[in-house]
Amino acid sequence: MAKEEKKFITKKSENLSQWYIDVVLGCELADYAPVKGCMVFRPYGWSLWESIKEYLNKRIIDTGHVNAQFPLLIPESFLKKEAEHVKGFAPEVAWVTHGGDEKLGERLAIRPTSEAIICHMYSKWINSYRDLPVLINQWVNVMRWEKKTKPFLRTTEFHWQEGHTAHRTHEEAMEEVIRMLHVYRDFAQEDLAMAVLSGPKSDSEKFAGADQTHAIEAMMPDGKALQSGTSHDLGQHFAKVFDIKFLDDDQVEKYVWQTSWGVSTRIAGGLIMMHGDDAGLRLPPKIAPIQIVVVPIIFEKSKSEVLEKAEALAKALGGMAVFGRPVRVKFDANEQVSAGFKFNHYEMKGVPLRVEVGPKDIEKGNVKIVDRISGAKEFVSVNFSDYSFDPAEFTGRLEAAQKNLFENSQRELESRTLEAGDISELENIVANSRGFAIVNWGGSDEDELAIKERTSATLRVLLEPVKDGNIKCFYSGNPARCRAVFAASY
Amino acid sequence: MAKEEKKFITKKSENLSQWYIDVVLGCELADYAPVKGCMVFRPYGWSLWESIKEYLNKRIIDTGHVNAQFPLLIPESFLKKEAEHVKGFAPEVAWVTHGGDEKLGERLAIRPTSEAIICHMYSKWINSYRDLPVLINQWVNVMRWEKKTKPFLRTTEFHWQEGHTAHRTHEEAMEEVIRMLHVYRDFAQEDLAMAVLSGPKSDSEKFAGADQTHAIEAMMPDGKALQSGTSHDLGQHFAKVFDIKFLDDDQVEKYVWQTSWGVSTRIAGGLIMMHGDDAGLRLPPKIAPIQIVVVPIIFEKSKSEVLEKAEALAKALGGMAVFGRPVRVKFDANEQVSAGFKFNHYEMKGVPLRVEVGPKDIEKGNVKIVDRISGAKEFVSVNFSDYSFDPAEFTGRLEAAQKNLFENSQRELESRTLEAGDISELENIVANSRGFAIVNWGGSDEDELAIKERTSATLRVLLEPVKDGNIKCFYSGNPARCRAVFAASY
Repeated sequence: MAKEEKKFITKKSENLSQWYIDVVLGCELADYAPVKGCMVFRPYGWSLWESIKEYLNKRIIDTGHVNAQFPLLIPESFLKKEAEHVKGFAPEVAWVTHGGDEKLGERLAIRPTSEAIICHMYSKWINSYRDLPVLINQWVNVMRWEKKTKPFLRTTEFHWQEGHTAHRTHEEAMEEVIRMLHVYRDFAQEDLAMAVLSGPKSDSEKFAGADQTHAIEAMMPDGKALQSGTSHDLGQHFAKVFDIKFLDDDQVEKYVWQTSWGVSTRIAGGLIMMHGDDAGLRLPPKIAPIQIVVVPIIFEKSKSEVLEKAEALAKALGGMAVFGRPVRVKFDANEQVSAGFKFNHYEMKGVPLRVEVGPKDIEKGNVKIVDRISGAKEFVSVNFSDYSFDPAEFTGRLEAAQKNLFENSQRELESRTLEAGDISELENIVANSRGFAIVNWGGSDEDELAIKERTSATLRVLLEPVKDGNIKCFYSGNPARCRAVFAASY
Repeated sequence: MAKEEKKFITKKSENLSQWYIDVVLGCELADYAPVKGCMVFRPYGWSLWESIKEYLNKRIIDTGHVNAQFPLLIPESFLKKEAEHVKGFAPEVAWVTHGGDEKLGERLAIRPTSEAIICHMYSKWINSYRDLPVLINQWVNVMRWEKKTKPFLRTTEFHWQEGHTAHRTHEEAMEEVIRMLHVYRDFAQEDLAMAVLSGPKSDSEKFAGADQTHAIEAMMPDGKALQSGTSHDLGQHFAKVFDIKFLDDDQVEKYVWQTSWGVSTRIAGGLIMMHGDDAGLRLPPKIAPIQIVVVPIIFEKSKSEVLEKAEALAKALGGMAVFGRPVRVKFDANEQVSAGFKFNHYEMKGVPLRVEVGPKDIEKGNVKIVDRISGAKEFVSVNFSDYSFDPAEFTGRLEAAQKNLFENSQRELESRTLEAGDISELENIVANSRGFAIVNWGGSDEDELAIKERTSATLRVLLEPVKDGNIKCFYSGNPARCRAVFAASY
């Protein structure tokens, strides 16, 4: 914030796509890198991701997992072991062919995902049923050579966590798949204030090498779904080709059952798009890098007193806790720009609460609070002799803002979830950017493809089974197997 | 710890190199990866690194820096811009030549260090003196195609933090170089209990592209130095080739002055080697992933009471704080192995304090404490009705152990720092694995090379200037410029 130069942001309601880029660049969340499709996480954007990570990591650890770190490079022969896996990923792999001046004997893939390298290690580490379950997660960078990219939402290099577990039975593995799906759902809803749908994917949308994929799906303001986390039942596909066997307590050698699951930096793109407004970002207080900004209102006469008292108040605010952690407060004493400039700046950056401290406030024993989420402006009492105040006036507002954002998101998702009785209704929902289309589904892979070609919508998740044999599939006319959700997607 | 199978560790005093590998593999800190020179950080090893990171990151943030994240891949043309830089790094770069099925127009380097990509971004971001200083750090994986590798100490892929700063003046940049050198020194000594020497490197040992490199150097038990952190004065070399200019307040356009500085996973190898003993690891309590392990002594009759009370005690111990953070306690209730096995296991893993809880202890109202660092075994009172105890009995021992480890390390460094009056004395110090040789130095680059060829020792750091013109260089006989430290090194 060097010069007083208001950043121009396209209106969200007018052009979502341009608004998104304006916000990402204007808030200095990210910048384009010189390698196509890659991005730089600028400090504010990285701090947002670190904050997201902290919440998700806690949920992963609390469900019994441990973090490790596997290598970046995977020999081509490893990737090739699982036929579906290599078919799915080979077209988007970045290949290392030379180390220094030497041509390598075998090409090495920069990991597009780590099943192949992790399964190789598991086959060394797992011998007995006593070694199971193995519940390992890693936070890493991965690379997929994407054609169309957009900061956060789809980038060639991205950051994520990938969990890889091995179990004694399929039942236990399935419990894990669902456990992590629910961890992702709760994380999205409770920490990021993003309402999501969750459920299994169809066969044609599953992970390359999995028996089944479950996902959480968020709804963006343009009616497109954003797949925001996936949890895979890998069956024994990888165990068989990587020879991951254990001696069970019945003295029989068996293959393990595996799962993998991941959430990436893409979800940060989702939350930016979902919560922002015409003025810029609106960050859920739980994960906002700055939760409260204190802006001193400076006049030459009262400057030193205001700066001193505002800073002391900022320090006192930082002594509070909210969401079980210390409140993150920024005190902005920069005198090269006006208070008005700062108001706009932190509004654009989505800081949940702004606290203004001017000479009159100090006189009256109050501060002006501006709530970024609700827009409310109120005065709150502060004793400027000992910097005492009612903490709930601040933390309560942060908690309420978190709740409000989620409720908005939930309402938006509900209002964008519409029944489609036939293909033209589905087409209409998609063409008018209206969101999720719920249908009775009994179609085939070919039907899915045909629907995609006609409407651009794909099957996002499968919902509850349809038991009434008289209910027909909205598309094929066959008896419906289940309810399902179609939508256009990112 | 599935089967009761004591891991065999070579004696440290007999074969340091084999002991090191035994400990790294046996403690499940790391494993070899299928790609040559790469390693897998197993959960215990990654948790150690995360703990190290946390302490170093705090020091980096507390000195005003912010974290960001730059891309993994650097176009070849960027690396080539700074002539010395590319000369130094090109021989060890892993090159990406293909994205999916397509051959790339330009080869991309997996970052061996990130000056080239970061300077490119800085040239976009920096325009005015008001934008300075830029104080950015990143925690990332990097890759250098090394010929001889050893887990943690030298690996093809490694993890580190790299700070990259841009300043208005050279003086300010030099303050930063020294500030970070001191941050590294204090971090090594206070957090990792590793005594270090610090100072500038000679021209022939500086970073490729720097004006000057400062380093911290630790002394390993085999008399070899380990460079454990570096802080570089980059001058304006990169600023000129990447065109990083700012308009100063005198309306003159100027190039910025830059620094970079880094500490890597190598330092974890240093602390393993420095502190361990014949029984395995000895971890400094501050960064030990487990600070206290509670082992129940199980007899069939009293089993349920002992398990319950030992677990409750473990929970109460976890409520304490030490070094300003919650104590990390593990309760090991595994009934498949004996208590004796667990004693060995956690001793090998270097857990600073073991607390044994048996039926007699509960009866008497005490627990047996075994201190991994001092070897002391003592009984400490615990009230098993309300799990009250004197916290200082536990936290005080952890603090004392941290202090003891550092004092041992400091004594070891001092006893391994020897004066060499001529080249044969230096030769003798190196040949007998005795450590740092301090000399009066006034030699040339060629002299350094000749000394290296004869003794294998290199110039580690330059110390205070020699002002007395009568004092001669130990090697060249020219007037000495300064005191200097030579040693064989990792």
